[in-house]
Amino acid sequence: MKSSVVNPWEVSGEINYEKLVKEFGTTPISDKIKKRLEKTHPLLRRGIYFSHRDFDKWLAEYDKKKKVSVITGRGPSDKMHLGHLVPFLVAKSLQENFNCEVFIPISDDEKFFVKEKLSFDDAIKFSEDNIIDLIALGFKQGKTTIFEDFKYTKIYNYAAKIAKRITYSEAKAVLGLKPENNIGWSFYPAMQAAHILFPQFSEGKHMSVVPVGIDQDPFIRLTRDVAVHKDFNFEKPAALHAKFVPSLTGDPKMSSSEGGQIFLTDSPKEVEMKIKKYAFSGGRDTLEEHRKKGGNPDVDVSYQYLKFFFELDDKKLQNIHDEYKSGRMLTSELKMILVDKINSFLKEHQKKRELAKKQMDKFLLH
Amino acid sequence: MKSSVVNPWEVSGEINYEKLVKEFGTTPISDKIKKRLEKTHPLLRRGIYFSHRDFDKWLAEYDKKKKVSVITGRGPSDKMHLGHLVPFLVAKSLQENFNCEVFIPISDDEKFFVKEKLSFDDAIKFSEDNIIDLIALGFKQGKTTIFEDFKYTKIYNYAAKIAKRITYSEAKAVLGLKPENNIGWSFYPAMQAAHILFPQFSEGKHMSVVPVGIDQDPFIRLTRDVAVHKDFNFEKPAALHAKFVPSLTGDPKMSSSEGGQIFLTDSPKEVEMKIKKYAFSGGRDTLEEHRKKGGNPDVDVSYQYLKFFFELDDKKLQNIHDEYKSGRMLTSELKMILVDKINSFLKEHQKKRELAKKQMDKFLLH
Repeated sequence: MKSSVVNPWEVSGEINYEKLVKEFGTTPISDKIKKRLEKTHPLLRRGIYFSHRDFDKWLAEYDKKKKVSVITGRGPSDKMHLGHLVPFLVAKSLQENFNCEVFIPISDDEKFFVKEKLSFDDAIKFSEDNIIDLIALGFKQGKTTIFEDFKYTKIYNYAAKIAKRITYSEAKAVLGLKPENNIGWSFYPAMQAAHILFPQFSEGKHMSVVPVGIDQDPFIRLTRDVAVHKDFNFEKPAALHAKFVPSLTGDPKMSSSEGGQIFLTDSPKEVEMKIKKYAFSGGRDTLEEHRKKGGNPDVDVSYQYLKFFFELDDKKLQNIHDEYKSGRMLTSELKMILVDKINSFLKEHQKKRELAKKQMDKFLLH
Repeated sequence: MKSSVVNPWEVSGEINYEKLVKEFGTTPISDKIKKRLEKTHPLLRRGIYFSHRDFDKWLAEYDKKKKVSVITGRGPSDKMHLGHLVPFLVAKSLQENFNCEVFIPISDDEKFFVKEKLSFDDAIKFSEDNIIDLIALGFKQGKTTIFEDFKYTKIYNYAAKIAKRITYSEAKAVLGLKPENNIGWSFYPAMQAAHILFPQFSEGKHMSVVPVGIDQDPFIRLTRDVAVHKDFNFEKPAALHAKFVPSLTGDPKMSSSEGGQIFLTDSPKEVEMKIKKYAFSGGRDTLEEHRKKGGNPDVDVSYQYLKFFFELDDKKLQNIHDEYKSGRMLTSELKMILVDKINSFLKEHQKKRELAKKQMDKFLLH
């Protein structure tokens, strides 16, 4: 196994999730919790979310009819792709299943600090475009708050309160800051913590959960430590940790800098071309061999996308799994199932984007 | 001579200003510039301001009828004392003599980051009180802009743009940041630079001058470097550097943490008591000796205060100087001249404070 690196700004190598749970000191999602998630989005109930911090406590608060909320943010990029949707599909599913508020901070500042070539104006432009995608996903109006750091600058007040309680050496130790990083970057951990604690700054002490890639857990730990400082006396936020959703080519982290991503604005032709060309296949080298030995759904990216994003019906999914594994279904057939699913999702999504443009004021803080 | 320390957060020991000019690489104020300042506030024309960067360029721009401005900020404290007024009296005088705009950023965030025990709410409260004092000084309405970082949070956008262009190691080298300082503190240099460049962010490229204690020059240098980055293409801001105005007891920097300061809210009795009790005297030990050898106005704090703050008339000042130096005027008499001057200033100031409370909206950015 190649050696792996996992931190908020770098993910590489093959990832051993069991080891990460131990290293980071998080808790695997128990069968009891899985039972509570039976009716939620496939990403939650089919195992992309594999670990947590205090999510059992979040559920217990919900059961006591106490306020609970979800917060998950986004560092805006040029265009959003499927992989970017992971935490938002989960947040939306939690909102539907637990009727709770969702908070979505957009960290245009982080992207601006970290990406040397990203201009301020582009950071703002990308944020707006990404916000349209997020609203189009269908979060509940009146129960969903989206804000962008460079627009809702009052967030600086909360970040300042937190910044006072994090020393440079703590931030450096937890996040691997380097002296050559700019001072915006070194301030950003306070902003990120302000995002995670925003539900409590805004609506008082309560349990909030952050669906987040496991690579972002260092921010969660730092924030949990700060949350209980006497300046705040907040609840430690809970977290739900995701595995990395593979890119089409099967790379562990679906990064938009690699080729072959499905963007939310892609046309049906582009989708079909990309899936056919890039989607890593679990099929055999020849038709004869495939019919005889069958495909491997566990490594087949098309199957994985159906499992985690698009085939909500467990029986239908099982059927595809069995057909492919037996060799009765070919890779080309499997891919076309996925192409159709993605295209019908995107057709709907792109329609909703047009609607979303008119609804922005109902979601955005200024 | 005791060894001295001069940096933005620490001033101690006896200060050799000539050496500082060399060390910091600034320019002594020339006779030619002095001539241009003949009608300005005593602080400017009688030598508290002793060094500059590019102030000749600022004057040249003014002569060409180009836009020029003044910017000087304040880290708010509980109550303002006389020493705090230094840069503002100068800014006001420049406004009157050169009919230019004045910008006054209030860095409640800096004080909040740096003072462990200062609460967020108190930082805001002190800012408001200090802003009342500043407005009461009589800056021109419509030509004066005051803003507070925690209220006018849009400043975060400008600070972020600058933060991207300052690395942690640069900030550390210039300002002596320590790893145990909080990450608000390490971000603050960007905010300070945003203050100094605010006139140009807000009204386009032009020459702006910062009247500032010489101890703050590292911020000026850092800001001048950033100003010309291609992201901004601003003019390097000019600076006018002040010597430290001594406290009543004669300490080099008039800090509010020491006893015996004249606060702007002091009553006539308090002023009289403080001057009598604390004002360091250049008089002799006995009346007989004083009459014979005379006092030393150069070290007498009461005389210095008359010279730099309160006796605007050069002839009258010369007269006091000669009377005191000859021994004809006693320390007690000199002190009473100052007490009367301060009290009539404060009576007026305290009246104007009441007026200022109703004018805040005309000066403040929100």
